[in-house]
Amino acid sequence: MLATIVQKFGGTSVGDVTKIKRAAEKVKAAMEAGNKVVTVVSAMGKSTDALVGLAQDISEHPDKREMDMLLSTGEQVTMSLMVMALKEIGIDAVSFTGWQAGIKTEPIHQNARIMGIETDRVQSALDENKAVIVAGFQGMTESGEITTLGRGGSDTTAVALAAALKAESCSIFTDVTGVYTCDPRTAKKARQLHSISYDEMLELANLGAGVLHPRAVEFAKNYNVPLIVRSSMVDKEGTIVEEEASMEQNLAVRGLAFEGAVTKITIEHLPNNFNTMSNVFSALAESGIDVDIIIQQMTGKNEMNISFSIHTHELTEALSILEKNKEELGYEHIRHEDNLAKVSIVGSGMVSNPGVAANMFTVLSEQEVSIKMVSTSEIKVSVVIPEVDMVKSVEALHTAFDLDVREEAKVTS
Amino acid sequence: MLATIVQKFGGTSVGDVTKIKRAAEKVKAAMEAGNKVVTVVSAMGKSTDALVGLAQDISEHPDKREMDMLLSTGEQVTMSLMVMALKEIGIDAVSFTGWQAGIKTEPIHQNARIMGIETDRVQSALDENKAVIVAGFQGMTESGEITTLGRGGSDTTAVALAAALKAESCSIFTDVTGVYTCDPRTAKKARQLHSISYDEMLELANLGAGVLHPRAVEFAKNYNVPLIVRSSMVDKEGTIVEEEASMEQNLAVRGLAFEGAVTKITIEHLPNNFNTMSNVFSALAESGIDVDIIIQQMTGKNEMNISFSIHTHELTEALSILEKNKEELGYEHIRHEDNLAKVSIVGSGMVSNPGVAANMFTVLSEQEVSIKMVSTSEIKVSVVIPEVDMVKSVEALHTAFDLDVREEAKVTS
Repeated sequence: MLATIVQKFGGTSVGDVTKIKRAAEKVKAAMEAGNKVVTVVSAMGKSTDALVGLAQDISEHPDKREMDMLLSTGEQVTMSLMVMALKEIGIDAVSFTGWQAGIKTEPIHQNARIMGIETDRVQSALDENKAVIVAGFQGMTESGEITTLGRGGSDTTAVALAAALKAESCSIFTDVTGVYTCDPRTAKKARQLHSISYDEMLELANLGAGVLHPRAVEFAKNYNVPLIVRSSMVDKEGTIVEEEASMEQNLAVRGLAFEGAVTKITIEHLPNNFNTMSNVFSALAESGIDVDIIIQQMTGKNEMNISFSIHTHELTEALSILEKNKEELGYEHIRHEDNLAKVSIVGSGMVSNPGVAANMFTVLSEQEVSIKMVSTSEIKVSVVIPEVDMVKSVEALHTAFDLDVREEAKVTS
Repeated sequence: MLATIVQKFGGTSVGDVTKIKRAAEKVKAAMEAGNKVVTVVSAMGKSTDALVGLAQDISEHPDKREMDMLLSTGEQVTMSLMVMALKEIGIDAVSFTGWQAGIKTEPIHQNARIMGIETDRVQSALDENKAVIVAGFQGMTESGEITTLGRGGSDTTAVALAAALKAESCSIFTDVTGVYTCDPRTAKKARQLHSISYDEMLELANLGAGVLHPRAVEFAKNYNVPLIVRSSMVDKEGTIVEEEASMEQNLAVRGLAFEGAVTKITIEHLPNNFNTMSNVFSALAESGIDVDIIIQQMTGKNEMNISFSIHTHELTEALSILEKNKEELGYEHIRHEDNLAKVSIVGSGMVSNPGVAANMFTVLSEQEVSIKMVSTSEIKVSVVIPEVDMVKSVEALHTAFDLDVREEAKVTS
């Protein structure tokens, strides 16, 4: 029996007809190497931006259901072109939208999670030795509504399909050659990793490293699907994400992530009730607002402040939800501070290396960077700082934690 | 109980964001006039051409199933933008793709016919007083494959929905103000008709007048749905297509249609068997080749020639099918002649006016136009002529059959 593999091509890897043809050649090669191949595709390059632009010309806050209707066309265009490209090079192929591929999601628009996959249709196409091309990023609810999975959701589609089909691996073809210690576009000395554990990758993904969607990594971890991050342009070994990262380096910090466009919101003088935290964050969660770091601070016997960070683009909605619930929540007023960034260090070696957080703060203080918020876990430390200081902080931390590329390992791409 | 009406906006009527907003205003007006409104939309202006262009960059003969996947995204984009535009002006609305609207088609790609409509989902949205926006041109087969209805299929979607919902009428908003005696872009003296019968419209639609899709007219006739053709730009009375055209004018010829890009194929020296005709045209029909005029001519005791006309864009496929079946069909060789056009005169008065065809031939002979094929029905006469003579023939016939606009009725648009 042939092994089934899943591969995913992101927007830049299918950005034009030439790139779609190149991706088709990779699918062909994978089939000729003796695999059954399921390929998940994103929308072509900037096509999603073009659709979003149309919507914004009509409405400042376009309806979420209709945004899903609109944006889900992007992958549908790519998948049909990909099949045409495969047929041109002699490979029988068939495309499926999210709903045709049996991808069932929860009934939430723009940020739905996959609840399950009915693989019958994909499986029977594989049984007929067809290359199967699936539209990433989208699914359908029980009641037949089209949903999308939110940013980077095509990765999740790919991993979920790999899990459901019990695939041997899931390759994520992208515009970088693998996972780096830090985003190489910013940190010039960033080094590519041969392997990384799910947990480390999860922290890096969650922290905005941007190579993989965090849900995709979580899915891969839960179903133990080996993930391979590799370049769609260069034929080069990628980075494998799997349970046990190889012991290539016993570093406390394996990688560094950062993201801009962070806003800190502070709700002042809230009553100190048992349900205060729950009320605040349930209200936000119901609207799908993605809250990151949360800090609670007592300001009196029966009063507290809550601060939390969100993506700046969700600020308007977050404020309007809090405003609407002002009476119920019982707070006095809200402040917010934007133009912030989050910088994080990640590594599973951290747990056995005390003082890593302290080192981080020292490096930042030497750079005269003011720290607005801190959050820690077993394998990461995150700080929220002014966005203007983001790049210099990243570079200083990358060097301080010994992540800079070594001469002998220098990437020549 | 409120009346249900269906309206359809073609590609030029939703060609950009401004036009979509204008169409939304028309939907709002129809609802405020006390109707439940279902609106069928086409793909935005040239967006279908752009998608076809992408496909052709990849494949000379793109897979038909995948073309349906590709092209059906066009209406999905329009419908979601239309809902956003409606919500902006305070109208609650919801969009449905073809499959969500319950439009069931036969399992033929690129040219499927509607087999039935399950209206539950549309009806319950109407019951909630929502404006319902449906993607035209598309449907789904029993087995969950996306199909498209072929050229002008959005008209068919609109009429079929009107029939299924027992709507009071179906308005087709387009870039002309109504049905004319002839295409006013070519025949400068063309006159707008106040009304026209289904049969006359059917002949005109079939003959390439282009205002309405023939299947849409057929559907409207079969289910007795009054069709109104009107402008999306100008607020002006349109043309109503209904069972009994008003007796405004007792003309033998009510309209004139024409189309270019016609090719005549002649199969020479076929055996004169009972099943010869059936074999030839079944083979073509199975591949969805649209054969128009057919002429059979005996060339010997047991031999015949068959000539037929098709759209020039189907020539390659038609020839390859005939070539593939050469042995079975038993013919000697095939000739074809392109750069032809078809010109037709239509009118239900024709049946009681002998000599109409003869008049037509006389007019053409005065213009020194050579006639390649002739076809007649009770209410029309069609001729195939060189494409280069098309416009002058149309103009001469329009004048000869007294169709030219009269001074007092001149359209001021």
